[in-house]
Amino acid sequence: MAGKLIFAIPKGRILDEALPLMRAAGIDPAPDFFHKNSRALLFATGDADVQIIRVRAFDVATFVAHGAAQMGIVGSDVIDEFDYSELYAPVDLNIGHCRISVAEPAELAATDDPRSWSHVRVATKYPNLTRKHFAARGVQAECVKLNGAMEIAPLLGLSSRIVDLVSSGQTLKENGLVEVEKIAEVSARLVANRAAFKTDARVAALVEKFRAAVNA
Amino acid sequence: MAGKLIFAIPKGRILDEALPLMRAAGIDPAPDFFHKNSRALLFATGDADVQIIRVRAFDVATFVAHGAAQMGIVGSDVIDEFDYSELYAPVDLNIGHCRISVAEPAELAATDDPRSWSHVRVATKYPNLTRKHFAARGVQAECVKLNGAMEIAPLLGLSSRIVDLVSSGQTLKENGLVEVEKIAEVSARLVANRAAFKTDARVAALVEKFRAAVNA
Repeated sequence: MAGKLIFAIPKGRILDEALPLMRAAGIDPAPDFFHKNSRALLFATGDADVQIIRVRAFDVATFVAHGAAQMGIVGSDVIDEFDYSELYAPVDLNIGHCRISVAEPAELAATDDPRSWSHVRVATKYPNLTRKHFAARGVQAECVKLNGAMEIAPLLGLSSRIVDLVSSGQTLKENGLVEVEKIAEVSARLVANRAAFKTDARVAALVEKFRAAVNA
Repeated sequence: MAGKLIFAIPKGRILDEALPLMRAAGIDPAPDFFHKNSRALLFATGDADVQIIRVRAFDVATFVAHGAAQMGIVGSDVIDEFDYSELYAPVDLNIGHCRISVAEPAELAATDDPRSWSHVRVATKYPNLTRKHFAARGVQAECVKLNGAMEIAPLLGLSSRIVDLVSSGQTLKENGLVEVEKIAEVSARLVANRAAFKTDARVAALVEKFRAAVNA
């Protein structure tokens, strides 16, 4: 029980949606958290027992799975990609909704039937999730791991298909791509380190506060 | 020889130093490249034969190694991390100088001797490079891959040591860390897809232009 709890949140757009829930759970970030040019990595909150770190989404999962952060918020896409046994995701926060899908150029999609695939080459940020998805339906997926800008891969001939997050579909459209297969619906989850959840009552209490906030 | 050449450059600070060399080689990005809010991924240049993509540093190496971009600029840290056989790095551009180093908390470093290590746990963006470095001197490195904010890992107990890029050392200092071992000097390199370099005379010609610009 010694030490402050570390709560990890991802950089990027999800914060706006997450803040009301965090505040309802008593985790209101200190003002310096909102300073754009701050180089600080660790921030106080309205709960004297809780500090925040703000890191990349993939790293939220890694920090929490290893117990370096006890709790956090991260998309179900990232949870599925890592499949960490120590990462417990007790609450669907019902924010950050999108989907993870297979897309390909519109010209290709016009005559292509995903059910006929036996081997696909895919550019993606999610090689594990992609391989698992295709393996389950008997398709071998050769993945090229990219960290961003997946949507340019087909244009440059890196791969005909991509697996990426899709929200409005605008980015796909701008790049001449169409969604041909949905892999999963995605939303942000409250995550906790499994051991911390079992042994630190403060973690279990915060989980209940988030659950109440979501249901409110 | 069909089609335009794709030249990949990394997002981030290196661009300011790279631009004079690119311009000297005739690859002057079109004005929309400099629009901060542009969502475009592909840009024209002063050379009608060359288009630019701007992607993450790790992805520059991946695009060029797979021949989806024929050339690019990327740090030697990224080249070493991937060790792609198809990535040819003919010119040291003499920009983007820094080093990749092992760092640890100052309290630990006060009594620690890196020569005594037999096993280390390291948080890093460079797991392959790190394992290779330590293996060469008989040390087993257990790496936790992070995508950023490595310097917070020791504070949160994720790992005592980190392997990261060090420039001024200011970030380490702000986080109570000190450099205990330099792995390599880093600088930005001109890279080319090996097959494209051999088969497309335009690629070899651009390599010579960059070489001349660096020596000028």
